[in-house]
Amino acid sequence: MLENITQAKIKSMTLKELLALCEEIRETITATVLKNGGHLSSNLGIVELTVALHYVFDFPVDKVVFDVGHQCYPHKLLSGRYGDFYTLRQKGGLSGFPKRSESPFDCYDTGHAGTAVSAALGIAKARDVKKEDFSVISVIGDGSFNNGLVYEAFNSLRLLNTNVLLILNDNGMSISPTVGSMHEYLEILSEDVAHKQKKEKHAKIFERFGFAYDGVYDGNDLEKMIEKLTEVKARLKNESVILHVMTKKGKGYAFCEDDPESTHGISVKKSEKITEEYSAVLGRTLTRLAEKNNKIVAVTAAMTTALGLGEFFAQYPERSVDVGICEEHATILCASMAAEGLKPYYAVYSTFLQRSFDEIVLDICEQNLPVTLCIDRAGISGADGETHQGVFDLSFLSMIPNLTVSVPKDVREFEKMLEFSENFNAPLAIRYPREGKRVFDSADSEIYLGKWEKLLDCGGKYAIIACGERAVTVALSAAEKLAEDKIFVSVINARFVKPLDSSMLDGLVESNLITVEDNMLFGGLGSLINSYFSTDRKIVKNFAYADKFIPHGGVGELMCEYGVSAQAIVDYIKSNENR
Amino acid sequence: MLENITQAKIKSMTLKELLALCEEIRETITATVLKNGGHLSSNLGIVELTVALHYVFDFPVDKVVFDVGHQCYPHKLLSGRYGDFYTLRQKGGLSGFPKRSESPFDCYDTGHAGTAVSAALGIAKARDVKKEDFSVISVIGDGSFNNGLVYEAFNSLRLLNTNVLLILNDNGMSISPTVGSMHEYLEILSEDVAHKQKKEKHAKIFERFGFAYDGVYDGNDLEKMIEKLTEVKARLKNESVILHVMTKKGKGYAFCEDDPESTHGISVKKSEKITEEYSAVLGRTLTRLAEKNNKIVAVTAAMTTALGLGEFFAQYPERSVDVGICEEHATILCASMAAEGLKPYYAVYSTFLQRSFDEIVLDICEQNLPVTLCIDRAGISGADGETHQGVFDLSFLSMIPNLTVSVPKDVREFEKMLEFSENFNAPLAIRYPREGKRVFDSADSEIYLGKWEKLLDCGGKYAIIACGERAVTVALSAAEKLAEDKIFVSVINARFVKPLDSSMLDGLVESNLITVEDNMLFGGLGSLINSYFSTDRKIVKNFAYADKFIPHGGVGELMCEYGVSAQAIVDYIKSNENR
Repeated sequence: MLENITQAKIKSMTLKELLALCEEIRETITATVLKNGGHLSSNLGIVELTVALHYVFDFPVDKVVFDVGHQCYPHKLLSGRYGDFYTLRQKGGLSGFPKRSESPFDCYDTGHAGTAVSAALGIAKARDVKKEDFSVISVIGDGSFNNGLVYEAFNSLRLLNTNVLLILNDNGMSISPTVGSMHEYLEILSEDVAHKQKKEKHAKIFERFGFAYDGVYDGNDLEKMIEKLTEVKARLKNESVILHVMTKKGKGYAFCEDDPESTHGISVKKSEKITEEYSAVLGRTLTRLAEKNNKIVAVTAAMTTALGLGEFFAQYPERSVDVGICEEHATILCASMAAEGLKPYYAVYSTFLQRSFDEIVLDICEQNLPVTLCIDRAGISGADGETHQGVFDLSFLSMIPNLTVSVPKDVREFEKMLEFSENFNAPLAIRYPREGKRVFDSADSEIYLGKWEKLLDCGGKYAIIACGERAVTVALSAAEKLAEDKIFVSVINARFVKPLDSSMLDGLVESNLITVEDNMLFGGLGSLINSYFSTDRKIVKNFAYADKFIPHGGVGELMCEYGVSAQAIVDYIKSNENR
Repeated sequence: MLENITQAKIKSMTLKELLALCEEIRETITATVLKNGGHLSSNLGIVELTVALHYVFDFPVDKVVFDVGHQCYPHKLLSGRYGDFYTLRQKGGLSGFPKRSESPFDCYDTGHAGTAVSAALGIAKARDVKKEDFSVISVIGDGSFNNGLVYEAFNSLRLLNTNVLLILNDNGMSISPTVGSMHEYLEILSEDVAHKQKKEKHAKIFERFGFAYDGVYDGNDLEKMIEKLTEVKARLKNESVILHVMTKKGKGYAFCEDDPESTHGISVKKSEKITEEYSAVLGRTLTRLAEKNNKIVAVTAAMTTALGLGEFFAQYPERSVDVGICEEHATILCASMAAEGLKPYYAVYSTFLQRSFDEIVLDICEQNLPVTLCIDRAGISGADGETHQGVFDLSFLSMIPNLTVSVPKDVREFEKMLEFSENFNAPLAIRYPREGKRVFDSADSEIYLGKWEKLLDCGGKYAIIACGERAVTVALSAAEKLAEDKIFVSVINARFVKPLDSSMLDGLVESNLITVEDNMLFGGLGSLINSYFSTDRKIVKNFAYADKFIPHGGVGELMCEYGVSAQAIVDYIKSNENR
């Protein structure tokens, strides 16, 4: 049925047909995600809710904003994208997230948590200003509900004097199980809903903010969902409604229902050899260091397992904090614990660290406090696309005074950098990709602040300065290819992007410099070196990502396409030789 | 009494003496602020509360975090800083904000809203980990209470399993009057407190999050404050408490009580001539454009008047939104209204825009939506110091794809840039300082995207590229001084920092380039130009702020000290000539 689905067809279906449609959606998603990777259990849980939305509302005239977007696949399948669904998360194919550029049914791009209520309010306000008439719906999970943005949006509902429907898709999970007092509160409310006490006093908080509260206890019961949404739709003329819907993450597939955390996102097994994941090294090393150092504390924002800290949290519960999806709060907790003499490690994905920019500047760095930022999934992260690429961190971190920025070249150096961090009494950022693919065979040289390492010392005309495993790999591979043509280049591991190793740079008077990094050009390693040499008439050629958002695709193919590859360096040096 | 005040002396005073102490604090603050500028009415309102805190608690063993820090002067006076208080906000003198570097009584630096609850929780958690025993207090205003960070902190109170005292200093004001549903809720609660119904059901929200709720209706009644704090202190062994204290902003001075908004911060009248404030130009121009263009909407986060938008808000209430201190939410509101075809202007101080970094990247720029950021108080802002300098914006904005970054050279060009923005269908940032001091007499040249303007065309060996009124003033003044020595330099107005004017840059083959900007070096105009020329062996000398936080002081003196001055440019060019 999905093949030629239209909004009109959905609305003309019988309940039985709609239920069959749900099954077809589930099968399509499961088959595709197991092949392409992607978000599985979050999408399986929301099938009935999405079908009911399409049955009751009139998209794309009505608008729906999916918070984060981990749950938009059923919506994609119901809005004319079944035919392309096999391309999900492939380069050039469908995005795994809502994208305005992909379909008029996607009215707002999301990717980071907590934005959907604000966006729905903005869309509704615009509707009112334009004197148009349609419904605006925001679908948000209970995990995102912890985020401060949701509260800010709530606080302005009455100010904006507009009406929206907020569907709280409550499956008790962020990626990890949801934590915090709001979660406990939602559990109480869900009991109310189960016992039909929907007008009960417990819902007062939402009413305070101007929302009428209603609920559906079995959000995977299609008939009930349709009934309730039909009722609520009529009320939206007069009021804003929170519809609290309990769904089962991974619904319909036992292996997802039983383990929704690890089936939240499915990675496609790759044939490539992996030495070790950086997250595993973080967990192992921090756990070891914490044994002797009782000042070490670890903080995460809802990604404990993915960040490798499961073991640490189990072993040192009193020195572990997962605050839920509250990146800003997590950052200040670290700063304030450091102010009191503890040694906090904040582990976070590069892309989500963007939320903490102001707090890194003022709470950590202005106070010069010894917080270590462990920045995972840095560089191109691949199939999640624009909203999840970790390609900005070197730029927004290097501009901050008092912050040391390090980029270990492999998992072994990462371990050493963590050891280095233990006695480093100032703010430190360590950024690394997900997978450690090789350990370079340079001797295990000691780490000194701001000192680089020559991996290949050929003196001469060219020196490639690279930071991080991916860029160092590219640099060494370029050097190898060039050597075949008897062009010998040096390769330097810039394990600190800030401060630069000025004595090594000053020693490179004879060389043309090439910089390589898995980051944007503006503000990154290349930029810093360009500025270092701005009055020295030195040629510095930068390989980094140009000023564009990078869509989804494979890490390797995207690095090549966006200009960071051994071949690009080889071509540049050869053309320079022949000039 | 303040002169030799100690914690022991405070504790030994009679009520009468303490009341006299309050008067002395008020007089000292008023006299100093009227002379040095600073925050007046916020500090006057909190005198009794602060004296009571010092009477009941044992600082610096106990810790108090002041949110934002607009209200820390009485605390400074009571903690050994009376003798230096005359230096408040002067270069080298006392900071107007809490500073760990200034006194052990300041346990955590603040400056931006909403951080104090998180910081208090972190400090309390560190205390528990270290198995120490002291009280942790956070003092936060009702304006900050709108910020999402507060909610994130609330949500984790039980998780952290620690006890803090949160004093909600409720004077009904942010800088503007406080807005939003939380504010309305606090008003209801304050009525409860007034009628002694302190255990009333209205306080349920805070109890949900694990706080016991209590209140003092007249927070300027010292005796009552002491009594209540003494009682609450004992309870902190067993629970966390929110103490809701109603205070009168500006208390004790009629002119402050009557107009707490404009006496929140006092600026010292300067003898310098001001042409017009940029904020006035924003208000006037946007109001004019909005008359013919009903798509224009304006959004602020609690600073409407200071940003010049009072008139716009009065004239177009349905197209105006002040969301309170919720910078992230404000940014998403703009993006989502733009997604629906409106033309939103988000006016904000440079330093507070840092909070929206992630939302500028993903909500505005990744979706390439035509939001205009009107960034006031950019560059060195002066007497507020480290936490308020607007010196990072060119750096964190220029690295974002799809964003055009403009820096008009004077108020007239700002007006033209706003006109340009109206039909510019992509994200645009316009950054400007507070005061427009001169209008340059170049012809009113038209604005074209990415095109610069030659203000002084002397061809030749040197070209100074400057952006914004302050840097252009510095550049022209350097050119004037150099002309006295028969050294003739060109001066270029880089009214767009991104994109750079590549055709003009390419035309400067013969010149050594000098860049000047009121921003950090890393990531700013100079950095971008350095990178532009990295393979061209071109000399580019940058005048911008080095990699340090800039403390409080006068704008001019700080610019000189941190390296952005006509004299520095003159010295550089002369030494280059004599080489």
